[in-house]
Amino acid sequence: MTRGKTAVALDLPRPAALTAETPQAKGATIAAALRAAIVDGLLACGSRLPSSRTLATRWGVARGTVEASFDRLRAEGYVVRVQGAGTRVSAVLPDDCVAASAPPDHAPAQSSGGIPGTCVPAQRAPSSAAGAPTACASPAAADAHEPAVRAGVPFVARLADAALLPRAAWRRHLLAGLRAGDGSDAADGADAGSAPVQGLPALRRQIARYLGAHRGIACTPDDVIVTTGIRHALDLFARVTLRPGATVLVEDPCYPGARQLFALAGAEVVDVPVDRDGIDTDALTAHAGAAAVYVTPAHQSPLGVTLTPARRRALLDWAHATDAWIVEDDYDGEFSYLAAPLPALKALDAHGRVVYCGSFNKSLFSGLRIGFMVAPPALRAALAALLQLTGRAAGLHEQRALAGFIEAGDFARHLRTSRQAYLQRRDAILDQLRRHAPGRWAATGEHAGFHFVLWLAPDADAADLARRGAALGLRLQPLGALCRTVRLPPALVIGYTALTPAQARHAGRLLAQLLAPAPAAVP
Amino acid sequence: MTRGKTAVALDLPRPAALTAETPQAKGATIAAALRAAIVDGLLACGSRLPSSRTLATRWGVARGTVEASFDRLRAEGYVVRVQGAGTRVSAVLPDDCVAASAPPDHAPAQSSGGIPGTCVPAQRAPSSAAGAPTACASPAAADAHEPAVRAGVPFVARLADAALLPRAAWRRHLLAGLRAGDGSDAADGADAGSAPVQGLPALRRQIARYLGAHRGIACTPDDVIVTTGIRHALDLFARVTLRPGATVLVEDPCYPGARQLFALAGAEVVDVPVDRDGIDTDALTAHAGAAAVYVTPAHQSPLGVTLTPARRRALLDWAHATDAWIVEDDYDGEFSYLAAPLPALKALDAHGRVVYCGSFNKSLFSGLRIGFMVAPPALRAALAALLQLTGRAAGLHEQRALAGFIEAGDFARHLRTSRQAYLQRRDAILDQLRRHAPGRWAATGEHAGFHFVLWLAPDADAADLARRGAALGLRLQPLGALCRTVRLPPALVIGYTALTPAQARHAGRLLAQLLAPAPAAVP
Repeated sequence: MTRGKTAVALDLPRPAALTAETPQAKGATIAAALRAAIVDGLLACGSRLPSSRTLATRWGVARGTVEASFDRLRAEGYVVRVQGAGTRVSAVLPDDCVAASAPPDHAPAQSSGGIPGTCVPAQRAPSSAAGAPTACASPAAADAHEPAVRAGVPFVARLADAALLPRAAWRRHLLAGLRAGDGSDAADGADAGSAPVQGLPALRRQIARYLGAHRGIACTPDDVIVTTGIRHALDLFARVTLRPGATVLVEDPCYPGARQLFALAGAEVVDVPVDRDGIDTDALTAHAGAAAVYVTPAHQSPLGVTLTPARRRALLDWAHATDAWIVEDDYDGEFSYLAAPLPALKALDAHGRVVYCGSFNKSLFSGLRIGFMVAPPALRAALAALLQLTGRAAGLHEQRALAGFIEAGDFARHLRTSRQAYLQRRDAILDQLRRHAPGRWAATGEHAGFHFVLWLAPDADAADLARRGAALGLRLQPLGALCRTVRLPPALVIGYTALTPAQARHAGRLLAQLLAPAPAAVP
Repeated sequence: MTRGKTAVALDLPRPAALTAETPQAKGATIAAALRAAIVDGLLACGSRLPSSRTLATRWGVARGTVEASFDRLRAEGYVVRVQGAGTRVSAVLPDDCVAASAPPDHAPAQSSGGIPGTCVPAQRAPSSAAGAPTACASPAAADAHEPAVRAGVPFVARLADAALLPRAAWRRHLLAGLRAGDGSDAADGADAGSAPVQGLPALRRQIARYLGAHRGIACTPDDVIVTTGIRHALDLFARVTLRPGATVLVEDPCYPGARQLFALAGAEVVDVPVDRDGIDTDALTAHAGAAAVYVTPAHQSPLGVTLTPARRRALLDWAHATDAWIVEDDYDGEFSYLAAPLPALKALDAHGRVVYCGSFNKSLFSGLRIGFMVAPPALRAALAALLQLTGRAAGLHEQRALAGFIEAGDFARHLRTSRQAYLQRRDAILDQLRRHAPGRWAATGEHAGFHFVLWLAPDADAADLARRGAALGLRLQPLGALCRTVRLPPALVIGYTALTPAQARHAGRLLAQLLAPAPAAVP
């Protein structure tokens, strides 16, 4: 995909339906035509649209009608409008399906939008938990006709639903890959012996394109290294860059796997609090000698908050000033339910400090075992040497199948389908909670990813709730188990992506029942 | 496969062709019938055959005829005969196809069977190089109609020929695996989230069976850990067991990847010489504090010698006495061209000291990225924890496909086909050398695996030969580059498995030309 910044789409065809409509309908038609051209790639990311005056003249409509459609696309996240620089296609496209179906004032949870309480050691009550829990009628008993909840599956975060995989398409690409080469075929540089350790060139090309179009990362296939997943990438990074005793800063609370991998490399792992704006960048100044900082900017793991643009800037400046590496774990970056998600932190990495990690195990299925990293040039040779020594990792046939799957548009289609499905599951749970346990909880981080945080009443015991949930077949994770030095109000991490819609409804009702138990019987 | 030691095959059917034959022909028929019963698994490994008296009576032939057929099977490696304990099916079956086609006095190379010279620091001339090179007529110019030699491929050791993969069968199992589950199917314990980090249970079951039947290793699926290949296994082992400064003993000469992986883990790597019997176990006594020793017993990498039974015993005793680990790299253990190869060292591991490593990347195709290790119980939990932390590695669909491929017998068939093919390639090269450069070389280690060692005349310059070979498109590896403290006579490592038969002939002739150049023109 071309990423030229001055490509002007002069040859956009006039939408056929523009005749004999009201100005409002005409505006909608123009917006739809432009949106389709953007989604289909006819208008490349970053390219400039013709001026409203030009389009109005060419298509024979009032300029105000075109202006209104531009404004609408801007609100939806498809374009950015800069005074004096015209209208350009966004570097990061919104989740179009979801954006099209979600109303602009979309506010799924009862949340106030921030984290209840703050991330400093505190026993403060959740600010959005709306005071003391209200008395609540006993929820309806779980419907006996609801499907049984599969043991252990519900509410597991970081896990995609493999059942959403379009098997026919995947099979097609797998077979095409088998036909294309058997490992002895050097046509695609994938000769069994000489395939680059960094991964199949065709796959790295597709990953680079995808990252450019969807995460705003301008990178070439040479920047991409294929891994078996995010943990593999973190392990490679740690082994290449960290000397024993090096300081690595991590978010608190944090994804435990990351902590453990840095500790395994001999690093001293230091916690930095997270608040509603993401990692506290002011706190970084105390750690000028740190070798690296590990962050989850898109959807903090586990709090679900998004690192603000100001904090992103501060984080990059700090890393540049102190020569520290930033490890960006974009584990669920494909899953934003907002109209205009922020680009990846890596997209702003002017000084080559960010190591970006992503994974198809999260977006396709966990058994795939293919992920990737985008490494700064300074680390590339060392990472390749370590990969070579420790064994090239991802299977060649599956790399080839995945390259075809992305190139044919099946991956983009799968992401749209999955986002739609996950949104429904999330809403099914929230709906049950709203109906059966009103006023007893608040949700944050539900705008993206695979999980949200369910804040409980200030006096609730999350660990006890998790124990009682286990008896009902619910696997609930208390947020406190992921905190090190910070103290947060009681909360549960609710992963919803691995549930079927029926399971989500059922499990949501059971969860509501836990939050709002039936009044104790009079003895 | 049942491995019961007392199963007596009383119901063996009488071979149909036994009537009206000479005693000699009858003996051959009986041997063929028993051989088929063994290969087909009707007579399990370790089971006892009926006595010659019983069979003779039952089938109406002379007892001497049955005895002769038993002797023949013993010579071929299918059975063992122990005084007073009868005749039993071997724990490790010979390569049946090859055994059936190769004459008993099979002696492919001009080799004396041992390594020319010894592995102590020495400048001794190769004992089998038959004195000074004889004057030799210029070999025929390479036939212009021979296929071009693919750059870089010839003579690469440790590399299987992916073109031999039975693609239709592989595709069938891959598709069956896709149908069987998509990662959300818990039927085979391969639920995406809960699949054991050690690998798919179905695959580990097949690997355990294969190792029992073909490498003499009595193990259960619980003993098996699926990796992405041998380097992955060595890396896992090193990270779990080695503390910085630990001593690891390696063979000299040695597979360089192993050295580097142990060094990466912070170990002090110490060289132990290899002679014609394998690693010098007497030299081990000087290293009582070593944490581990790394060996390639089946076909030493690179010398190609097989560790003798006495040395195996000594190695195991040393490890038991000093609490050291033995890492057995059986990288080409599937490829013995002898009638009765030795079982793996692991088969004798009574005290749980041997970590066995194998790989399907070698026996199927390099792009597969599935290998395995059989770890002693004491290491299992730590290995699983490290695998969990650093990311499950092998793709689930390919694990499932491979399990089906082995279970259906396609893997055993593929091994037979590959062994046959590799044998032809080896012989094509040796034939060219015999015809066009007689008396100028000797080969050792050609009885197994992917390569042999080509010993040159004592005054030859292997590095110079490799340089001149490169100009002809031959990638030749001087043996000296793999030696650390030992000094060996000049030799080249000749990997032949990745060559087509035509390439093997062509490259063999070019190689012969290098060894026996045309006499210099009179100036």
